[in-house]
Amino acid sequence: MAKIDLNSDLGESFGPWPMGDDVAMLGIVTSANIACGFHAGDPAGILKVVKEAAARGVCIGAHVGYRDLVGFGRRNMDPSSAELVADVIYQIGALQGLARAAGTTVRYVKPHGALYNTIAHDARQAADVIAGIRAVDPALALMALSGAPVVAQARAAGLTVVCEAFADRAYNPDGSLVSRSLPGAVLHDPAQIAARMMRLIATGRITAIDGTDIALEAQSICVHGDTPAAVAIAGALRAALAAGGVTLEPFARGA
Amino acid sequence: MAKIDLNSDLGESFGPWPMGDDVAMLGIVTSANIACGFHAGDPAGILKVVKEAAARGVCIGAHVGYRDLVGFGRRNMDPSSAELVADVIYQIGALQGLARAAGTTVRYVKPHGALYNTIAHDARQAADVIAGIRAVDPALALMALSGAPVVAQARAAGLTVVCEAFADRAYNPDGSLVSRSLPGAVLHDPAQIAARMMRLIATGRITAIDGTDIALEAQSICVHGDTPAAVAIAGALRAALAAGGVTLEPFARGA
Amino acid sequence: MAKIDLNSDLGESFGPWPMGDDVAMLGIVTSANIACGFHAGDPAGILKVVKEAAARGVCIGAHVGYRDLVGFGRRNMDPSSAELVADVIYQIGALQGLARAAGTTVRYVKPHGALYNTIAHDARQAADVIAGIRAVDPALALMALSGAPVVAQARAAGLTVVCEAFADRAYNPDGSLVSRSLPGAVLHDPAQIAARMMRLIATGRITAIDGTDIALEAQSICVHGDTPAAVAIAGALRAALAAGGVTLEPFARGA
Amino acid sequence: MAKIDLNSDLGESFGPWPMGDDVAMLGIVTSANIACGFHAGDPAGILKVVKEAAARGVCIGAHVGYRDLVGFGRRNMDPSSAELVADVIYQIGALQGLARAAGTTVRYVKPHGALYNTIAHDARQAADVIAGIRAVDPALALMALSGAPVVAQARAAGLTVVCEAFADRAYNPDGSLVSRSLPGAVLHDPAQIAARMMRLIATGRITAIDGTDIALEAQSICVHGDTPAAVAIAGALRAALAAGGVTLEPFARGA
Repeated sequence: MAKIDLNSDLGESFGPWPMGDDVAMLGIVTSANIACGFHAGDPAGILKVVKEAAARGVCIGAHVGYRDLVGFGRRNMDPSSAELVADVIYQIGALQGLARAAGTTVRYVKPHGALYNTIAHDARQAADVIAGIRAVDPALALMALSGAPVVAQARAAGLTVVCEAFADRAYNPDGSLVSRSLPGAVLHDPAQIAARMMRLIATGRITAIDGTDIALEAQSICVHGDTPAAVAIAGALRAALAAGGVTLEPFARGA
Repeated sequence: MAKIDLNSDLGESFGPWPMGDDVAMLGIVTSANIACGFHAGDPAGILKVVKEAAARGVCIGAHVGYRDLVGFGRRNMDPSSAELVADVIYQIGALQGLARAAGTTVRYVKPHGALYNTIAHDARQAADVIAGIRAVDPALALMALSGAPVVAQARAAGLTVVCEAFADRAYNPDGSLVSRSLPGAVLHDPAQIAARMMRLIATGRITAIDGTDIALEAQSICVHGDTPAAVAIAGALRAALAAGGVTLEPFARGA
Repeated sequence: MAKIDLNSDLGESFGPWPMGDDVAMLGIVTSANIACGFHAGDPAGILKVVKEAAARGVCIGAHVGYRDLVGFGRRNMDPSSAELVADVIYQIGALQGLARAAGTTVRYVKPHGALYNTIAHDARQAADVIAGIRAVDPALALMALSGAPVVAQARAAGLTVVCEAFADRAYNPDGSLVSRSLPGAVLHDPAQIAARMMRLIATGRITAIDGTDIALEAQSICVHGDTPAAVAIAGALRAALAAGGVTLEPFARGA
Repeated sequence: MAKIDLNSDLGESFGPWPMGDDVAMLGIVTSANIACGFHAGDPAGILKVVKEAAARGVCIGAHVGYRDLVGFGRRNMDPSSAELVADVIYQIGALQGLARAAGTTVRYVKPHGALYNTIAHDARQAADVIAGIRAVDPALALMALSGAPVVAQARAAGLTVVCEAFADRAYNPDGSLVSRSLPGAVLHDPAQIAARMMRLIATGRITAIDGTDIALEAQSICVHGDTPAAVAIAGALRAALAAGGVTLEPFARGA
């Protein structure tokens, strides 16, 4: 029977500022990428969402980012290797402490925003993130962009890599994401999104923006929860997958 | 044979700004209170000093503080319990991650600055710190001010407490420290400091500023390394203790 | 003809995190307390709201706070006088720069959150805030809690003080605000709020929570905009005041 | 009679962490680039050094940087135009407030670190910095790298540009600085440095690292004060210039 993991970015509130509907999303996803305090998330807010995830059996990952709170980790930065390796270790460790306090365990690492995009193709920063993960625990998986060079690089370094597809994004024929600045980059129709993901799970293939049919490896599907519309799309996808006989479970068994 | 632990605050550099002579102090102390990023310390700098501590067999503790970098954690703050508990967990976890990367282990927690002074007598914030430590690992010891109410509070909560004496500070007859704003509060004579500490180790007693002889529990002695003079005093104390037949070793065996 | 100023806290978004409905509130208030970056507000977001305020002729004030972003400036802190004076100057200056870029002028200073409450009665911190304001420009007014000791202290120091009443808060018989932790502290009925404020403007008197009729000096009324309900109450109050023949205008003419 | 301005980066302490010897440098330079809080500098420390500069008649400039404290503004970043323009305005305004409190005036803006290097050649970020300066006060000068494209860009936008030469750096034949990673990039001999600068002032020419004689526009010379050796070199240069009949004065008359 087909199965898939659904993941989303959670814990991205900061102090008095809420972001997204974490509780709603925890009823939809099977893996939660939890902000670690550098691009978003404060300890009390992170602990709260980690406890809620633990209570629902949702798997926890460290959503590590650049140290750029005001920019939400979305701006390119150029940390040295010593800085980036240590920043990754620090963030994972902090989340591990909070996870322990909540009776759960960090299972994987998913870089956030500009760091996510940069390591997809920048071998130096990718190596730093990989080194940081391995220094804490080589059993931690890396969640990464399907098809990006970092996937092979991390596997060669001995990490388990979970490839993810984006439910609401269009793909280029080479398997990369269509830039958000281009028309058609973001999909909004829940039925279309569900159909694309059902086909991806069943066949490992997806239709690119130019109509080309391409192969895409995906052990997880990323959904968003930052707006009510996004939550609705994620919920509809979950319902459609379940109705289609797909088992939704964390890629990391025993979470 | 008598033995004692020597501890000092290390890892308090931040980015381009150095503080103290960590390498010199790691040759003197047996336990290092490592800044965790809230009052001082950046991940790359912390990782470097933790590696150096590990290489020398110096025991590592989490020097957790208020989230007040510009104030160096020395200003009184009033976090809620939810905030303080989570802030403590976050900082311990972050240091545990860095310690793991350095092949060592966090053995204890010593609050810093205003947090240290506040929990000495403020039962609410003390309870929050204790809860944070226990949530991460109840086997972590708490290093605290000898004689302060927090010592009994933490022991009643099941924590191992390491009481510390301050090598270069005068004591009031009730066992509290003489305020730095008063004359005679800080001692500068290495010979006097060594003699006081030798007597404390041998007899458990120390002479207060008014001449009263008082009992003081101490499993560790705090020395400073923020100035060349402080490093010299700490080194002289270590030499004097060794010459006097006192074994210097971390309170936490197997560190 | 009676007239009054309406003020509200604006510009409290930070990076990706919105807060409140600044545009809606700028259609209601005559004076805007703009966050200056320490408790909330980033430069790009502040500049945007200051431009919008300038376009509507809304008067600008510097909403200075403690340097505590995650705590939103709501936690008591104990900065030294050198720190607090300079922090106030820095924040006012930063907002003045942004106001100049927007073609407007900072007219007053209103401390935020814990700093507001602290200086109401703490003469040392009040003196620091007053000194900071005077160092930048003695013509800047201080907006403060009606009846609090800081009002006389600031006037004695030569500052113009604008006393404010809180539209949606109950008062104790001594003119202080009923603590939010007590029942009845916050009013929710737009009609009752409008009636209380109309009477206050007409007579300078308000009914305390125990029924006592008390005098209250008010050149400005503080309204909130952090929730849709709060915006609705503020809008209803403005409409009621206008219908009652009260002229709404900034206390600082020529804004 | 020949004259020149000497400038240096000051006010770069942060909270408990000192940097450089500001007081010594204020006895040497005629213009002080003052950190504004984003890459370094806290309000109380900035105010202190601005007061000391004012007391010595040293001209004040805003040393604006990227918002990257731990990286000291030395890491490349990619802020949006809206962010960079507002960040520049905010920092200038904050320093203007502190300068006013110290009885002096901000005369110019010198970007710091990675921002300085980036705007030298990146027209988009250069335009943002220029726009930020002009929005606060078009009479503020921009201090920039002699020969870089930003010089013409800023002049075309109507700004006064002060070109600076670096006393202790070797130049390429095209007028750019030799990268610090190459041998010979940094000069250490006070006599050689003084001779080069005397010739530059007298003739507008300097010898590049390959022996080529090149023209270099310079209204100011940058010296460093971050180490005792750097302070000594700066002091020796000042003495040599004075002995050679060069008048040392701020480029901005009436400072």
